[in-house]
Amino acid sequence: MEVKAAEENKGDEFSDFLERWNALQTALTLFDWDNETLAPPEAADRTAKVVGTLSAAYQELLVKEETGKLLEKEKKKEGLSEIQRAVLRRLEQEREKLSVIPPDEYRRFSELTAVSVSKWSQAKKNGDFKIFAPILSEIVDTRKRFASYRKKEDEKLYDILLSDYEEGFTMEILDDFFEQVKAEVVPLVKAVAKKEPVESGFLFQTYDIKKQKSWNRWLAAYLGFDFSRGVFAESEHPFTTSLHKDDVRITTHYYEDNLESAIFSTIHETGHAIYEQGNSDEVTQTPVMGGTCGVHESQSRFYENILGRSKAFWEPIYGRLQDQFPEQLKNVSLNQFLRAINRAEPGLIRTEADELTYCLHIIVRYELEKKLIDGSLSVEQLPEEWERLYEEYLGVKPGSSAEGVLQDIHWAMGEFGYFPSYALGNAMASQIYHQMSKELDVESLLKSGGLAQITKYLNQHIHKFGAARKMDEVLRDITGEPFNPHYYIAYLKHKYSALYGLEL
Amino acid sequence: MEVKAAEENKGDEFSDFLERWNALQTALTLFDWDNETLAPPEAADRTAKVVGTLSAAYQELLVKEETGKLLEKEKKKEGLSEIQRAVLRRLEQEREKLSVIPPDEYRRFSELTAVSVSKWSQAKKNGDFKIFAPILSEIVDTRKRFASYRKKEDEKLYDILLSDYEEGFTMEILDDFFEQVKAEVVPLVKAVAKKEPVESGFLFQTYDIKKQKSWNRWLAAYLGFDFSRGVFAESEHPFTTSLHKDDVRITTHYYEDNLESAIFSTIHETGHAIYEQGNSDEVTQTPVMGGTCGVHESQSRFYENILGRSKAFWEPIYGRLQDQFPEQLKNVSLNQFLRAINRAEPGLIRTEADELTYCLHIIVRYELEKKLIDGSLSVEQLPEEWERLYEEYLGVKPGSSAEGVLQDIHWAMGEFGYFPSYALGNAMASQIYHQMSKELDVESLLKSGGLAQITKYLNQHIHKFGAARKMDEVLRDITGEPFNPHYYIAYLKHKYSALYGLEL
Repeated sequence: MEVKAAEENKGDEFSDFLERWNALQTALTLFDWDNETLAPPEAADRTAKVVGTLSAAYQELLVKEETGKLLEKEKKKEGLSEIQRAVLRRLEQEREKLSVIPPDEYRRFSELTAVSVSKWSQAKKNGDFKIFAPILSEIVDTRKRFASYRKKEDEKLYDILLSDYEEGFTMEILDDFFEQVKAEVVPLVKAVAKKEPVESGFLFQTYDIKKQKSWNRWLAAYLGFDFSRGVFAESEHPFTTSLHKDDVRITTHYYEDNLESAIFSTIHETGHAIYEQGNSDEVTQTPVMGGTCGVHESQSRFYENILGRSKAFWEPIYGRLQDQFPEQLKNVSLNQFLRAINRAEPGLIRTEADELTYCLHIIVRYELEKKLIDGSLSVEQLPEEWERLYEEYLGVKPGSSAEGVLQDIHWAMGEFGYFPSYALGNAMASQIYHQMSKELDVESLLKSGGLAQITKYLNQHIHKFGAARKMDEVLRDITGEPFNPHYYIAYLKHKYSALYGLEL
Repeated sequence: MEVKAAEENKGDEFSDFLERWNALQTALTLFDWDNETLAPPEAADRTAKVVGTLSAAYQELLVKEETGKLLEKEKKKEGLSEIQRAVLRRLEQEREKLSVIPPDEYRRFSELTAVSVSKWSQAKKNGDFKIFAPILSEIVDTRKRFASYRKKEDEKLYDILLSDYEEGFTMEILDDFFEQVKAEVVPLVKAVAKKEPVESGFLFQTYDIKKQKSWNRWLAAYLGFDFSRGVFAESEHPFTTSLHKDDVRITTHYYEDNLESAIFSTIHETGHAIYEQGNSDEVTQTPVMGGTCGVHESQSRFYENILGRSKAFWEPIYGRLQDQFPEQLKNVSLNQFLRAINRAEPGLIRTEADELTYCLHIIVRYELEKKLIDGSLSVEQLPEEWERLYEEYLGVKPGSSAEGVLQDIHWAMGEFGYFPSYALGNAMASQIYHQMSKELDVESLLKSGGLAQITKYLNQHIHKFGAARKMDEVLRDITGEPFNPHYYIAYLKHKYSALYGLEL
């Protein structure tokens, strides 16, 4: 399965290698996309075989001796750009990570996660954790084993997993961050809960799905999603993926009795998509395409919450939403609408959570993952512990595992250590916003529909670099300081005390 | 890019090879599907690079020396099944075909056809052949060059291309077949044209697309399409593809002012899909999965025309169609409907053609391809010659190249020599039907909705073997004789003289 270089790269071994890397990577991404959006239920086993073979080829390409030599040679070249250096660093990390895993085990794990998503989906549909538990145990065991293969002396397994998603953010840093959040946010949530609930029933009338679709399509375009270089589709669990900067795909999920869900999924995923569509030509189709998890999430959250739930954002477009749904919204003022979409209400579902409580959903998952990985919690105990923590932090209890431990796709995909990036992204969004507000008149821009200037700011500082810069590097470049959760907590306290008339 | 075998195939080199073959083949199929159904317009160039790299890997895998030795070794094994022998034969053919093509040229051609479809689509949308002509010239030249690399002494280039789609059917055989068709069918078409046109306006009222979709979905299931192992989608040009027997995908195209188009596309593509879903476990995910072109087309045509335009087929379900579209069909009797869907009217569009004139559309393309390949016609002359032949055989003239030379996707995909398989398939369907009628009471089965028994007959004789048997072998097995166009011509004469009250 040797691959020849294209004519123009003839003789350039490293370009040839990158092309092969990219072909396998893109094929695997396309199979993932297809599995989640379209593939029929019975296809999983046979397709998993194909995915297993391609993953094995991917591992083999990265770990073989020749590749090691090639990277060494490439690193010695003079005049490498920042991106080229980042590509090499990323490839070395990936090589280190994969070279310790026996090929049979790696392949088996790819096949496992290619079928586990459909098992999870079936378990969720039936609200029956038992259907998913055996495969989840196997996934946890494998992730632990893989991490142990590259464990250094006093490293913790979960720290190794965390570093795969957001380099430099260990349990030590996260524990500190989350303790601050718990100390400040939990009392805020409790204070809000004592207030009169905000009227939001009008968001849950019957909203024709066809009309929702056309409105959300328009909204994505308004935000800056480039349809000529993207796909706007549907799936059970909204997500963003991309084959490269000219083929970025987002999905939304529509509910007939919920206007809010699809709108904020659309804004969120469009935030991700604008990032990927904004990658530079140098970055796309390389190992630093896209963005690191936390930085990516900072962008989706920035669009969803900081822009998408602000008054200035809705001022020029709320009338358009009323025109699409006159019956349901004609008597709802912009202020009523804004209060409703900004209400804080402890709930069960992370993806439907408000800005204030969102981080608590992440803390639950973080604490569970820590225990699953250090072995102090078994997969069988997971649903019970999930319920306990939800009661403790949010004061709510899931009626079924579908709205409890089975709600997220991540563990089915083998992703442990991913969730904290969501919280980091939220905090980063506030930190960026704090700085951006000094340089741009964000409010006036939003009021005049001038999103392009805001996007340009983000593009120049973040999007074009893809995943070439770590979160701390991005933050230092924009704000002059490293990650600092202070801005996030201050933002939440300021916003919610104003909204609910609290004195803090 | 070496690939390891899965645990269970450890040590079995040939299974390992087949897995790798299958992984690349399936990935390329998925990119094709995605290009035609979903990929955004600007994605083509970057995705073509990926497809080029995967195709290069495919070629390299097949042509490398090691593979040659492996096939030799495998052939010597005792007790090989019919399917195993067919797999080896198919791989050797593919190896012979690919080993003469320089890797750079092969890769370039894959990239070319990965972008040419979007060029063709753009040209068709604009009705402007000039947009497509340069890339088409390059495709024709490349196909000729590739065929010349494996040309034996007095072989003709076009015969080489024909053999890629339906082994054993040379120009000599096709010329003879098509001369018979022209001699018998052209006068029949002329005689029909003199008759009063059949009333069919009711098929072209306004038919809500959402309702059409749900009806056609139901129809596919009625015919036997297994939705748990398949996808039912939409595309500009209806087609069928499959990743394997448990993931078979068909598309239909809906027009608001045409009820007939989607129905017969659905039946046609479902015919293909039932074939692929009916492949045996031994056949799927191997080089003899699916079916050869002509045999495949015999099945789609069998379902579309022989079953799908018969009175017995519609008797139990026409009421259901009336219920879906009461306003449009309440005053249309079953007999009126049947006469309309069986009317013969020379038209411009192959895929919309009736049974009687369909073959003439193929003959036009066959004669053009012959000349393009032997060099007596240039790409620039193509539209004019297309028009001349349509006038001669069908008495119609395209208003624009979109309904003329640009109507089919095949040439854009690099497929020359494919079209005749459609005609062969039509003829084969009649030949099979002749035999099947001796063994099964097809009419009674259709009247009672007993399609499963008909499908079982086809499955046992055809579908389960995939492409392991050549058309002549399939026909000899079922009917005891080789390909014989007599049944097809007799069928057309009998059917259309009865429908139009002609004396022949």
